[in-house]
Amino acid sequence: MSTAKQQRPKARLPRGFRDRTAAEIGAERKALDTIRAVYQAYGFEPLETPAFEFTDALGKFLPDVDRPNEGVFSLKDDDEQWLSLRYDLTAPLARYVAENFQDLPKPFRRYQVGQVWRNEKPGPGRYREFTQFDADTVGSNSPAADAELLMMVCDALEAVGLARGDFLVKINSRKLLDGVLASAAVDPARRGTVLRAIDKFDRLGEQGVRLLLGAGRKDESGDFTKGAELAPDQIAQVMRLLSGEAEAGMDDLGAIKAILTANGYADDRVRIDTSIIRGLDYYTGPVFEAQLTFAMKNDSGEEVVFGSVAGGGRYDDLVARFTGQQVPATGISIGVSRLMTALRSRGLAGEVEPLILVLSLDDAARAFATARELRQAGLRAETYTGTKKFGDQLKYADKRGAALAVIEGGDELAAGRITIKNLALGSALSKDIESRAEYLGARQAQKTVARADLAAAVRELLGR
Amino acid sequence: MSTAKQQRPKARLPRGFRDRTAAEIGAERKALDTIRAVYQAYGFEPLETPAFEFTDALGKFLPDVDRPNEGVFSLKDDDEQWLSLRYDLTAPLARYVAENFQDLPKPFRRYQVGQVWRNEKPGPGRYREFTQFDADTVGSNSPAADAELLMMVCDALEAVGLARGDFLVKINSRKLLDGVLASAAVDPARRGTVLRAIDKFDRLGEQGVRLLLGAGRKDESGDFTKGAELAPDQIAQVMRLLSGEAEAGMDDLGAIKAILTANGYADDRVRIDTSIIRGLDYYTGPVFEAQLTFAMKNDSGEEVVFGSVAGGGRYDDLVARFTGQQVPATGISIGVSRLMTALRSRGLAGEVEPLILVLSLDDAARAFATARELRQAGLRAETYTGTKKFGDQLKYADKRGAALAVIEGGDELAAGRITIKNLALGSALSKDIESRAEYLGARQAQKTVARADLAAAVRELLGR
Repeated sequence: MSTAKQQRPKARLPRGFRDRTAAEIGAERKALDTIRAVYQAYGFEPLETPAFEFTDALGKFLPDVDRPNEGVFSLKDDDEQWLSLRYDLTAPLARYVAENFQDLPKPFRRYQVGQVWRNEKPGPGRYREFTQFDADTVGSNSPAADAELLMMVCDALEAVGLARGDFLVKINSRKLLDGVLASAAVDPARRGTVLRAIDKFDRLGEQGVRLLLGAGRKDESGDFTKGAELAPDQIAQVMRLLSGEAEAGMDDLGAIKAILTANGYADDRVRIDTSIIRGLDYYTGPVFEAQLTFAMKNDSGEEVVFGSVAGGGRYDDLVARFTGQQVPATGISIGVSRLMTALRSRGLAGEVEPLILVLSLDDAARAFATARELRQAGLRAETYTGTKKFGDQLKYADKRGAALAVIEGGDELAAGRITIKNLALGSALSKDIESRAEYLGARQAQKTVARADLAAAVRELLGR
Repeated sequence: MSTAKQQRPKARLPRGFRDRTAAEIGAERKALDTIRAVYQAYGFEPLETPAFEFTDALGKFLPDVDRPNEGVFSLKDDDEQWLSLRYDLTAPLARYVAENFQDLPKPFRRYQVGQVWRNEKPGPGRYREFTQFDADTVGSNSPAADAELLMMVCDALEAVGLARGDFLVKINSRKLLDGVLASAAVDPARRGTVLRAIDKFDRLGEQGVRLLLGAGRKDESGDFTKGAELAPDQIAQVMRLLSGEAEAGMDDLGAIKAILTANGYADDRVRIDTSIIRGLDYYTGPVFEAQLTFAMKNDSGEEVVFGSVAGGGRYDDLVARFTGQQVPATGISIGVSRLMTALRSRGLAGEVEPLILVLSLDDAARAFATARELRQAGLRAETYTGTKKFGDQLKYADKRGAALAVIEGGDELAAGRITIKNLALGSALSKDIESRAEYLGARQAQKTVARADLAAAVRELLGR
């Protein structure tokens, strides 16, 4: 890090990071507020942990068990201890629960929404900073805790606007898989590789998973992924699980389903599906995945049915890592940017409050007073604070996408009147207009009203 | 970063970081939503920049000009470039504007709320991660842009609940100081030291500032801060500025005041005060500071009148750092945790929605249905999902601070009735109660109603 004054720095972002602007932020805030209201009504409490944790507190629960110290952003603190930015919200929760166990209600139910950071190779739609919305119940081994999360996530997805049938929550149990792996005598050291292979069932299909369970698979780009090297009969047993034939060890799933069914959450919303695995190694029982059922366009404009918008499961060993004491826990995490892509695709993320622009032709103080008057009437009104050039003001109105402009000319003011211009209507007319006189001459798109009637006239024009 | 399985990690946070829980988060969210609504109504648009920037993009605009590479959290990316976590929201804004200048409306007005990180020594109430709420106007050199920010911040502080007179926004101009420094022939290299000395006027008083303008000052702990080493006549000229005698160069302040006065923002809310400096070196014109006028208790319980809850000013050179082209800009930043301390002190941050706890004595599915029914009636209702031990359930109700418990016993259910227990009233009575029978016997604190009347009875008990 040189401190010398060199040439000018370039104004750019590191790869994998991005800026977000008004439309996206507004839609996301609305969705997050809606989910929060649902979780809050269920009695879950918010928790916020800091961005940093000690690296050893995140430890072995990294997203990819093969590369335990990659995938996170880490730095050394002044006292030589390693810190890392959180890569999810579950590891900090485990640390929090271990640290505050005595003081917490049992079970402890919290939600947390926040950014997480992954030091991974960015790609299209794949960023190194993104937002998760988690809910977890810690300290209950009851299927009621799992069932509650599932009902709650269904309620949340419907509350943000998805229709019944637009999504399906699939549940499975790790215990099923573990039973199969044990009966097929699969080496426990290969469990992680087997899990990740099965987790790709949706994307690669049966044949792809078979290759990954065996010697390995070469993808379209020619990259080779080493397989779990199971024997053919072992592969056959695992594949039977994926086809839904295994019914042993369904007790916990059965108890969850019974609660769901009694509460009206039937197979059209939550269904047992033995092909659901979830990649993370730390799940110990039921696993969940909420999938969208409709096709949509991805960021590159291609039509895809994309997988999960939420996922989770039971992880009974995370807190024990700190305390030695096993604490049952279960959780579900919504991937916020995926959810927002889905909502945009369904036309559910576009609403914008119309903006009224007050043009201060010569008296800024008066323009502020007019804008304040409109705000007090419940409208969104801003004052132009730039140059006095009329051309600049027109360009500004255009870039802002304002619905209406309120123009206070000296003559009208003297007559106790004020002009309202319909910018949407006027933009078509004003393409060739260069002077203010011509602009004001486009009478179809504007009207002059008595000053006292301003707010009412604006409301009428906005159709309110 | 060892990957070996050593002993268990300790569940703790790095120093200077903290967890935040429900009451604090809820109150802060309410305040932030309120400020956001005010800024949004003024036509400011949200912007979100990522946590990381290239270190060279933050560059010389560090909080403390004497230690340009301290104060931030930095790490090297895979491609050997240095990244830093943002330490404020202004430097990322300058980068954003430089990067997107052609596409932005001029002026560009945005608000941003988000965490910032400072790699500094933590202390009481001083964390290494905290939240700022900024609003800036870029691309206007008009005093109207400054005046708008001042009116907006006054509106925001009143909207979150502060009374007229609880705060005072003080404004000054850097140009005044620069004029005095020039006429006193102060070496420009000492400008930063002089600025920081003057900025301590509120805390150290006249004598302390005199020492810092001269040879230096030893504080209570014995630490010595080197002074600006001005000559006595130079010190006298600077001190005259602080006493409010300098009136030259008030043009920009005068124009701002005129707009404010015309809009009813008089000396009871915004006042010119020549002792206001703001520590940052990058301000080029008017500077602002919103101060609270009442005494409150700090986190250690001591009564203090603490300084600013918001501050800012005009910085016309930040974007030029990237582009070479000067872009006028002005902004104001609210320190969120200071504001929340103030609101708590005024009793404005305590409201909590009452919680109803549905105790599932033997049928979880039924308890969920009851809780859902209450939620559909607009109430906050949760289901206990822990063990079946009644003692655990009582402890849980206590820790959760629930207002009411709804208890569904088998006998009552058969009779079409349900029991509601007033926990606030009951907690006094139940201190010595150990069995469920005794508990249910404390009849003063509970009532049994027809099942169909549940929601109405709950509302009545909550006084809704």
